[in-house]
Amino acid sequence: MSHNTFGHLFRVTTWGESHGPAIGCVIDGCPPGLALSEADLQPWLDRRRPGSSRFVSQRREPDQVRILSGVFGGLTTGTPIALEIANQDQRSRDYADVAQSFRPGHADIAYQWKYGLRDPRGGGRASARETAMRVAAGAIARRVLGEGVTIRGAMVQMGGDRVDRTAWDWAQATQNDFWCPDAEAAARWALQLAAIRKAGSSIGAVIEVQAQGVPPGLGAPIYAKLDADIAAALMGINAVKGVEIGDGFGAAALSGGDNADEMRMRQDGVVEFQANHAGGILGGISTGQPVVARFAVKPTSSILTARRTVTQEGQDTDLLTKGRHDPCVGIRAVPVGEAMLACVLADHLLRHRAQNHPVLATGRMPRP
Amino acid sequence: MSHNTFGHLFRVTTWGESHGPAIGCVIDGCPPGLALSEADLQPWLDRRRPGSSRFVSQRREPDQVRILSGVFGGLTTGTPIALEIANQDQRSRDYADVAQSFRPGHADIAYQWKYGLRDPRGGGRASARETAMRVAAGAIARRVLGEGVTIRGAMVQMGGDRVDRTAWDWAQATQNDFWCPDAEAAARWALQLAAIRKAGSSIGAVIEVQAQGVPPGLGAPIYAKLDADIAAALMGINAVKGVEIGDGFGAAALSGGDNADEMRMRQDGVVEFQANHAGGILGGISTGQPVVARFAVKPTSSILTARRTVTQEGQDTDLLTKGRHDPCVGIRAVPVGEAMLACVLADHLLRHRAQNHPVLATGRMPRP
Amino acid sequence: MSHNTFGHLFRVTTWGESHGPAIGCVIDGCPPGLALSEADLQPWLDRRRPGSSRFVSQRREPDQVRILSGVFGGLTTGTPIALEIANQDQRSRDYADVAQSFRPGHADIAYQWKYGLRDPRGGGRASARETAMRVAAGAIARRVLGEGVTIRGAMVQMGGDRVDRTAWDWAQATQNDFWCPDAEAAARWALQLAAIRKAGSSIGAVIEVQAQGVPPGLGAPIYAKLDADIAAALMGINAVKGVEIGDGFGAAALSGGDNADEMRMRQDGVVEFQANHAGGILGGISTGQPVVARFAVKPTSSILTARRTVTQEGQDTDLLTKGRHDPCVGIRAVPVGEAMLACVLADHLLRHRAQNHPVLATGRMPRP
Amino acid sequence: MSHNTFGHLFRVTTWGESHGPAIGCVIDGCPPGLALSEADLQPWLDRRRPGSSRFVSQRREPDQVRILSGVFGGLTTGTPIALEIANQDQRSRDYADVAQSFRPGHADIAYQWKYGLRDPRGGGRASARETAMRVAAGAIARRVLGEGVTIRGAMVQMGGDRVDRTAWDWAQATQNDFWCPDAEAAARWALQLAAIRKAGSSIGAVIEVQAQGVPPGLGAPIYAKLDADIAAALMGINAVKGVEIGDGFGAAALSGGDNADEMRMRQDGVVEFQANHAGGILGGISTGQPVVARFAVKPTSSILTARRTVTQEGQDTDLLTKGRHDPCVGIRAVPVGEAMLACVLADHLLRHRAQNHPVLATGRMPRP
Repeated sequence: MSHNTFGHLFRVTTWGESHGPAIGCVIDGCPPGLALSEADLQPWLDRRRPGSSRFVSQRREPDQVRILSGVFGGLTTGTPIALEIANQDQRSRDYADVAQSFRPGHADIAYQWKYGLRDPRGGGRASARETAMRVAAGAIARRVLGEGVTIRGAMVQMGGDRVDRTAWDWAQATQNDFWCPDAEAAARWALQLAAIRKAGSSIGAVIEVQAQGVPPGLGAPIYAKLDADIAAALMGINAVKGVEIGDGFGAAALSGGDNADEMRMRQDGVVEFQANHAGGILGGISTGQPVVARFAVKPTSSILTARRTVTQEGQDTDLLTKGRHDPCVGIRAVPVGEAMLACVLADHLLRHRAQNHPVLATGRMPRP
Repeated sequence: MSHNTFGHLFRVTTWGESHGPAIGCVIDGCPPGLALSEADLQPWLDRRRPGSSRFVSQRREPDQVRILSGVFGGLTTGTPIALEIANQDQRSRDYADVAQSFRPGHADIAYQWKYGLRDPRGGGRASARETAMRVAAGAIARRVLGEGVTIRGAMVQMGGDRVDRTAWDWAQATQNDFWCPDAEAAARWALQLAAIRKAGSSIGAVIEVQAQGVPPGLGAPIYAKLDADIAAALMGINAVKGVEIGDGFGAAALSGGDNADEMRMRQDGVVEFQANHAGGILGGISTGQPVVARFAVKPTSSILTARRTVTQEGQDTDLLTKGRHDPCVGIRAVPVGEAMLACVLADHLLRHRAQNHPVLATGRMPRP
Repeated sequence: MSHNTFGHLFRVTTWGESHGPAIGCVIDGCPPGLALSEADLQPWLDRRRPGSSRFVSQRREPDQVRILSGVFGGLTTGTPIALEIANQDQRSRDYADVAQSFRPGHADIAYQWKYGLRDPRGGGRASARETAMRVAAGAIARRVLGEGVTIRGAMVQMGGDRVDRTAWDWAQATQNDFWCPDAEAAARWALQLAAIRKAGSSIGAVIEVQAQGVPPGLGAPIYAKLDADIAAALMGINAVKGVEIGDGFGAAALSGGDNADEMRMRQDGVVEFQANHAGGILGGISTGQPVVARFAVKPTSSILTARRTVTQEGQDTDLLTKGRHDPCVGIRAVPVGEAMLACVLADHLLRHRAQNHPVLATGRMPRP
Repeated sequence: MSHNTFGHLFRVTTWGESHGPAIGCVIDGCPPGLALSEADLQPWLDRRRPGSSRFVSQRREPDQVRILSGVFGGLTTGTPIALEIANQDQRSRDYADVAQSFRPGHADIAYQWKYGLRDPRGGGRASARETAMRVAAGAIARRVLGEGVTIRGAMVQMGGDRVDRTAWDWAQATQNDFWCPDAEAAARWALQLAAIRKAGSSIGAVIEVQAQGVPPGLGAPIYAKLDADIAAALMGINAVKGVEIGDGFGAAALSGGDNADEMRMRQDGVVEFQANHAGGILGGISTGQPVVARFAVKPTSSILTARRTVTQEGQDTDLLTKGRHDPCVGIRAVPVGEAMLACVLADHLLRHRAQNHPVLATGRMPRP
């Protein structure tokens, strides 16, 4: 991860501001020969798109992605894949106040201090709009990983209200406005968020992403451990303040005996883990168990309640942020979290092949 | 972060196995002209060393570091600084069982699957012994940051028992065996950990690291955000399963109004934040407020209680891990967490200077 | 340099195929606050554009560049700068034969072997069309370097015919079709190349690029030496087969006494070199003398003379390459070579600032 | 290539100064399961060692390499391989003058300007002593490449005197003091260099390195082309001023018809090239033909003839460089050039496997 590029072999570079003419990305290092068209990417983008329910920003962006390079005859060629989405609905007038003052909780003042200037329209580069390109990149990463790997996400907590994990139903997660796997929680959240939205406030959330079918052996210790790269990828999503793998912070309260994921041989000669406290990763390397990660999303900082802040000229002021915002930005972070996980896994799949090709080729790698 | 190197400009490459002849690191990109000797590094290493209390591993390692390059006449020269520590107390006999079976919770099986073979002595490369070099690198990073930046760490939770934050006393943190800033909690933990140790079990912990005096503007959005790099650096420490910045997972339960760190101008023309929910980072860029991060450390997987596992030949077995282990590996993770934070900050200080030299030079960067 | 990105801090990522909808690049790490508009880039692109004389390809491409991000209010913001040029004149019909056979001297067969497939239209990604984006990036790099640094290029040899270096006149170099600093050589070449073009053949060339005003201290030994990075940057231009710095291959024939660039103090306290055999670089670090590099460009492989080759199905065939080609592709390599040199210098300027900020700040660096 | 590390997947980081306690390197990313011991490395180091003939430096260094990590049970484990050589014969007294003045042609003044200080003993980090670690790394790279790839080097020109290529005999190259494949040229050079040495002077050289058996498909266009990476690797060797691939600068004088490496199918279905002007690389990708590169080495700058220079305090002076130097440093550059080529190829082999694993696996890649 460096500047606006992430990945070591499957590399994603994004560019673009919220209210510029377009946003885009370049995906470099994609294996050749994969079937790919715009129609393969669009469904994933549609899941993140604003305006899709009353609980997300009402900005109207069709988010139609174009592939500008790297594909010929319907197949990836191994050369860089350039993707681009034109910005359509830039109401820059909403941001006149923002140009003069620093919105609390936003990156305004940090950009000003770092660069000496900033593009204030819609948060400029710091806008969550940038994440559309992550989702597009993630769709290609899924193709690299192949059909054996399934990556899914769910919102597991809104404010202080958590899902009942015993009621987890992946099918349910695509049938409500919250990617919530627990129908009852979804119903509670709908009521709660309607009230928060009406009050001009916002609320935080926790998202869980899972990858099933991940082959063992992915991860490059010591400083590109799979969990470290996942942590960076998820922490780098806008508004994220925490990341955990497997039992995460809960592991702090466990004893060593309870935390051990014991193993037994299945009759078919496969190693079977008796639990997955580790979230599918040991020593920074995947074990073949489901990779499980969670991340905390802070409440949207753009709210209709006035907060104390300062102007660019150094005067005290009070600011309330008009514009079209997500009352719970965690909702739209679900497809973004999935995409980041997919990109990290694709990158590590390529890295693993590179170094351990002989191990893979000789079949010296028993699998769970 | 890539392979066994981390950092983009202040780069640390570590090498070595738990029971090999030595461990070491190469620090590349260090600015020239900094006063540096082995005596500057040793105190930091002594804080992480095993055998320093009854609550940490009894392995006897003096951890005497040697500087082999990059320093001339007592000053860094800008060339790579090679550091090395000879291993002394390698009781490889303790690990005979481990060579045949996979310790649950350890990286044994993951390394086997990834590489087709592994060095089983003391966990080989996956041993926490590697973290000694991170501490040494961190000591140099502190020098790069200068005296204006203070980095400290504390254990804030052992098992389910948290410190009382209202009783926080940094002076206290260096006076007990736990880096605990709350004397009462330290007393409770001493009793509890003595029992755990006696029972041959282990327990998890949560560590907090703070950096004060960090200049605003550090962090390279979008994919080398300061918080993302901190997340990777801390998650990459052995046994860490979760990382959070500022309010972290607690932010999920907040409203946007409560989470906003409001601002006011002080009479001396300095921007003053009214709170620090953000942990000193907005949009991936430091704000000049204290950088605050926490990480969860799982209980040591090496315990004297037998756990179910499998052998390398694919047979079921039960394994208890003899050897000299830390009943709460979180304790020794405190100096490691500080060091990783120092390295990330030093790297970003250099990166910031590079791109924003004109901003820095023209004084266009007002500071909080 | 890695994949389709080059530079460590001033990073350029290019994408696009000869006959795709567009080509583009992303420039990451550019310092903020630099004045930049499309009008600043266009003149540099016009120098490389096809169709500008009878001695270059007759493909008609206006090469109108658009800035899609990273600039606000006429100033760079420090965020990625995306540039894009729409392709206009793609006569893919010219390339029907090429899809079936491998053009000798071209990358066709290499891409086929590497990726298992290729985009045959105009050479796809391997087309020199990609170099337009290098020129655009170079224009931004010049801005980073500032007005104190002057980068110029000239063609110094066509076929076996070299310029008379005693007749070197930079003003002349922009007044003929060859960037030739020697008017008489230019006149000879015009006659010679007209004949070569008429014969459907092509010819090689040698280009020299110079940078004046480069501050001393640029270059990151041992493995990012300034000359090593220049060598990679120039060798990576299409059709380049050799690179040399200063006296280059001629240095092999010198004695140590003759090769030494002796030094004397000027009365104003400045170190003055008595010669520049080293081409401005010692130990991989700039000395403040002019940086001088030359590169050899092979003759265009696309010629109207039939050559023996094989088809994709493994049959012998003879192929002559129709289409619009440069009889001496070295001509258009001049602005590309300048641009690559500018990018490498800009990258190293940022790197130098990062590590040696204290040296720069304290004025401990005497200058020639 | 970045700082003191090179390679993207097969990564080599070197450290150490000429007169420090030791030099060393870390090789990261090496595939696991390769047989490796110190005895495998020593013969390669012995080829570069000083003191082996009267035509090279008389410094007495046994150059005994130690493997400190990354190997277990005689096999590489996939973790970093640390190598180290203790410095033995550091006669720092020879360098007292050097500490006060800048040797012309050396990096002394450049380091001083860059870093504000320098280690003057034996050239410090800029000493050719560092190349011992490149040779060690190259020995491991050869193992990664396997027995199918043969890498050899030869000196093909000393001063202005070239070998007769029609008399090329690889067996001869290991039987004289010059790695010269032409016995007659070697005899001439022996007489000439004896005289140069006696006169306290030095002379330049040109080295050729070849790799046979390189699989087609290696190279990562556009900015990690195989030839660009080779150019950087060779240009980064001490005293190198030029690099060329295949016909190199000679290609400038060719017509397109002559330069084309025509192809024909052999009866066994293999593509056969009729020539190798391209030096085994097209479009930055290997073709399966021998990879051929040459590099020019300037005459040793340390000579016994006084040259004009300046002191660190800014006074004119004359300096002659005592100490033990190579009258033709090109001789010892031969094994270094081979090693750098081996490292670049090993890195690209891993990179190619990573991205093109499916192509390799499905056998879609016909080979020459």
